[in-house]
Order: sequence, then structure tokens, then C-alpha cells
Amino acid sequence: MNYKIRALREKLKSLNLEGMIVSNPTNIRYLTNIESEGTLLITRKENIFLTYTMYLEDVNRILTIDDEIIVADVRDVSAEEAENFFVFCENIGFEENYVTYEQYKRLKRRYRINNMVETENIIEKQRMIKDEKEIENIKKACEITDKCFKHLLGYIKEGMTEKQIALEIEMFFKTHDTDGVSFNPIVASGENSSMPHWIPSDRKVKNADPILIDMGCKYKGYCSDMTRTIFMGCILEEIKPVYDLVLKNQKNVLDSMRNNYNIKTLSRGVDDSFKLSNYLLIHGLGHGVGLDIHEIPYINSKNESFLKENMVVTDEPGIYLPGKYGIRIEDTVLINKTDCITLTNSEKGYVVI
Amino acid sequence: MNYKIRALREKLKSLNLEGMIVSNPTNIRYLTNIESEGTLLITRKENIFLTYTMYLEDVNRILTIDDEIIVADVRDVSAEEAENFFVFCENIGFEENYVTYEQYKRLKRRYRINNMVETENIIEKQRMIKDEKEIENIKKACEITDKCFKHLLGYIKEGMTEKQIALEIEMFFKTHDTDGVSFNPIVASGENSSMPHWIPSDRKVKNADPILIDMGCKYKGYCSDMTRTIFMGCILEEIKPVYDLVLKNQKNVLDSMRNNYNIKTLSRGVDDSFKLSNYLLIHGLGHGVGLDIHEIPYINSKNESFLKENMVVTDEPGIYLPGKYGIRIEDTVLINKTDCITLTNSEKGYVVI
Repeated sequence: MNYKIRALREKLKSLNLEGMIVSNPTNIRYLTNIESEGTLLITRKENIFLTYTMYLEDVNRILTIDDEIIVADVRDVSAEEAENFFVFCENIGFEENYVTYEQYKRLKRRYRINNMVETENIIEKQRMIKDEKEIENIKKACEITDKCFKHLLGYIKEGMTEKQIALEIEMFFKTHDTDGVSFNPIVASGENSSMPHWIPSDRKVKNADPILIDMGCKYKGYCSDMTRTIFMGCILEEIKPVYDLVLKNQKNVLDSMRNNYNIKTLSRGVDDSFKLSNYLLIHGLGHGVGLDIHEIPYINSKNESFLKENMVVTDEPGIYLPGKYGIRIEDTVLINKTDCITLTNSEKGYVVI
Repeated sequence: MNYKIRALREKLKSLNLEGMIVSNPTNIRYLTNIESEGTLLITRKENIFLTYTMYLEDVNRILTIDDEIIVADVRDVSAEEAENFFVFCENIGFEENYVTYEQYKRLKRRYRINNMVETENIIEKQRMIKDEKEIENIKKACEITDKCFKHLLGYIKEGMTEKQIALEIEMFFKTHDTDGVSFNPIVASGENSSMPHWIPSDRKVKNADPILIDMGCKYKGYCSDMTRTIFMGCILEEIKPVYDLVLKNQKNVLDSMRNNYNIKTLSRGVDDSFKLSNYLLIHGLGHGVGLDIHEIPYINSKNESFLKENMVVTDEPGIYLPGKYGIRIEDTVLINKTDCITLTNSEKGYVVI
């Protein structure tokens, strides 16, 4: 059995669960490499992937004998067989943060489960700590993101629209050995940069504009995430102290990030520093990155947990002045025992193009 | 108040519901045009959109006074205020097919709701029947899809990879006034075409290959969906009868589709015809298209309901021979009183390039 499923089984045992129904496709991919629609049943003795005929060829191509996964068309499983998967079991885990209320009721009925137990992101927690192969993939995604940024510095010209720049980002990733973007790139110029989740528009980049670019790609399923705020022609003097404050905080966070560092403390440090200058941190300071672009742990002032070795997270403070401009600087970061490594390495000082 | 929310309120009233919590972002967009994260509360007298500070500027830009929607940061709503939204209410609807089990529990607690009532896709059902503006948008998306197909016929050459062709599709949509693809295009060549949901690979298109192309774009949020199977250089004789059988069935379905036509009957007709030739219809015959690429109604042999005027659905029979090839032909179709209109109009006879 592959080591990820084995680790999950041990965890289930320790929680007194006799099995689990895995519905979240990202968790299924993590455990099995399967990308097709379906449900993974971890029963007492077997791993069963229930899918549809149209995916069978695909799934069988991906699995190896070592995975020890039985594959079947869900429609070939009779009601009686379904009830037998978890027979004599008391507690079966499910994903209460993924399964809808309706699906919950259906699963409970179909598999005749006595006690459906909430598993509190048991697999997502396992996913927080990346293995060597996963880190390699994220590193590669970050490298290609840096290359894309370098390319953009030569590409962006006054008069181009935000949409044009966003499209160039997508094209770059698609033509550089990735699975494409890890999320729709944000390109926000001038006053649009004050909206943290701006959708690229037809606004043309003008002289003295800040241009906030938030982008990432996927390499073998694993994401990168980076933001830089650059400037067209020149930087308005009034922006510099805000830029400096964001950058100082972004770097301070990097100086602190390491194994066992308290997440809340990290975020509060930035909160406090911003408040001293009458600004607010209006979004989370960061988030985990992996198969999903946003994963646990979420780096904010309410998270009581700690960073751990081999987590990959972002560090992305930002300040936004509605109607004027916004500055955000973000890296994807690998947590080590005594420090951290920034996996995205594009220039963070003033960049004027 | 806008007419979509008014219609929803009337429906709620008829179901004896005193309010509803709308969580599905597509439903929120349908009702309000808001694309930012948040929750829409339909209370007895008010419409309240709870979001986050970082989206406030964006949301206020989109809403008009006519929408009659109160916007607030969810973190500015005290526990007491939250409990008051539905005070003295008995039955409040929620989206059991969207809300996770965990969210269900949280909503019930936060808004102190006596009876959370499953609404059985009440808004999705409203969305099935498109208004004039929605149909205009889907028509436009389909027109651009036809243009893309025409472009591909000149673009695709022997030796190109599936990925290259898929990228060209994305580029075409992005540069032709759309919001981009409505789903990741499927480009499946040669034996890969036997997998209905193939992800474009580095396989190069060879002489005599069938090339199955399933693609669509979004125009002002509304989707198109079309599949054609074309051929490189020539068509193998053995493929022709299969192609003809798929096309005959695809056209027969179009001949039947109209207001009040039984959905089950449509799908069974294709099932039966395929079985007569020892083939199987291994996926649904079609699905609704709108703000989502896959919406209700699902066109399959189990659906007891009827087509209605101003529904937009797909008609996409396919036959797949593992290891050999697959043929699928799909149009997006507008249902009329006495017939239907195919909104995608690319060539469906043998296309050899």
C-alpha cells in the first residue's frame, strides 16, 4: 500500500475510526494520483475507488499494483454490496468540510453507517507537511513563476491593458512546461490596485501607475503563488513609505518563519506594525500552498497553531488605499528547522519599468 | 427590488419559508451580479450581503439602489445582530446541495435558526429558464465558439500536440472578447479520443487520427459548450458507421427537443439505438448550460422531468471504443415552444483537415 494511505490508516486507527469515505478530489489525488471523478472508500481491509465507466481506462492507467486500490463502476455496486463495505463498523469518518449536507445524508443511507464521524481535515492536515517529491514540484512551479516575472518586465509597456498582461502570464505558463495557472492572475493597475482581488480589466497602464501582479502556476499539480507591485515610468513619492512599510514587514516575517514558530504571533506583528502607521492588514497574512492554491495552515491572527518543518506557505502583507493604490508583496516559502527558504526569488526592491 | 430576487421571494412564500440563506456564489451572482465572496441573506424584509472589507469597494461598484441590498462586513456583525436577522422566523431555507455539513451546523448556530429547510435547488430551478439577456449572452458565447472552430480548421496541422491545440483554443477565446474558456478544453487525438474526459497531452496528431475537440467559452459569465470530432488527412472506413450512428442520433434528438418534451424519452431513444448496434451510451446525453457549464436539467434516462421553453441544454451523444477511438458530437441548444434552435452551428458532417 502506498505510504500516504498507510499514514492515513494509522491516523484513523488512533482516532478509533474503522474506515473513511474520501470525497474531496484533491485529497483523492493526494492519496492515489487519481484525477478522475469518484469516491475513495477506506474500509477495514480494502481501498476501493468507485467511479464511472467513462473513467475506468484513465484510472487503471494511473494506478500501480503497489497502490492496492480496487476500482469499480459505482453503478455496478448493488445496494446490498454497498451496505457490506462498512458492515460491523461503528465509526466511519467523512469530510464534513467538503461533503454537502445532502451528500452526507446520502452516504449515511447508502453505506448504512451507524456513526458518521467528522474528521476535521485529517487528510488536509497530512497534506500540510510536504514530502521531498512535493517540495520539488512546488520549487519548480516557483522557478517558472520567477521566469515569468522576468519576462513580464520586458513585456509590459505603457498603454497595454491589464487583460493583455494577464493573458501573457497565462500564455507564458502554458508554454513553459506547467499545467497552467494556479489561479486567475491578478493584474491591477493604478487605482485598481487598491482592490486586493481585482479581476483584470481593459484599463490601460499609464505613466506613474503602480501595477500589482499576483500570479502562480501548477507543476505536476502543485502550485506557486507570488505577488509583486511594480511601477510604470516612476514611483510617486507618496507611495514609497507605504511600499517600504509593506516590504519591511514582509521581510520581518521571513526572518521569523521557522519550525515551531507561532502563527498568531507572526500575523500580529504585521498587524501592530501597520496600525502604528494608521494602516490595517485587511486580509490574511498568508496560507498554505500545495495541490490547492489555498490550503491550511491559514496565517492569520486567530490561528493558534505553529509552523512546522516542510510546510509551504505564503507571506503576503498588503496595504490598500481605496481610490488611490495598493501595495502587496508575496513569496512562497518553505519552512525549515531553523529558518525558511523563499522559493520565489524575484526582485522585491522598487522595480520601475 | 430586482425581478430575480422578487421571483425567489414569491417562491419562498409559496413554500412557507420566511427567509433563505444563499451561499452558492453562482446563485448569488445570478440574483445580484455580485462576484465577490460572501453570503446573501434573504430575511423577511431585507436582502443582506455579508462579505469582507476587501470586497466592499468592488461590491458597492456593482450594486444599484434598485437591487435593494444592504452590504456589510461579516466581521462587523455581532453575535446578537446575527441572531436577530431571522428572529421570530420558524422555517429558513438553505442550499443543502452546496453548503457543507460543517457550514450547515455553523449557519444554524450563528443565525439561531429553528428549522433549516432544504430548498431542493430552488434557485437552480429558477436559473433553468433563461431570460432574454441571458439567452443573448449564451448566443454570443456560442457564436464565438463557432468562430474558434473555424479558426482551428486552418490552424491544426499534423505533428502538433494536443496541448498546443488546447492552448490555441484558450488563446482564441481570451482574445475574442470573452471571459475565457467555460471549462478546460478537451483535445483527444487517435486512441486518446476513447476517453470522454481526456486531458490534452503531448501526443502529436498523426495522419488518419480522429481529433475530438470539446470546448466552450464564457460571455458575460454565460457558457457555451460544443464538441466536434474531426479527422487528420483521411477517415478510416471502420470509423464511418460509428460516426454516422452518433450523428444520426444527435440529429434525432434535435428533431425532438421542444417545450414539454419528456427528458427520459429523449435519452432512452439514443440508448436503444446504440444498443441495437452493440454500443453503449456511457455518459449523460446532455445537461443545462448557463452561468455554470453543467447545470440542471441533466438529460439522462432517469430524469422524469420535461424540457421547457427558454431552457438551454446540450445534446451530446458519444461512442467510445477503448484503445481505438471515440466519437462525440455536441451542440448547445435553446428550447422553443414547438422546436429548438441549435446555438452552435459548426459543420457536423465528416470534416477532414
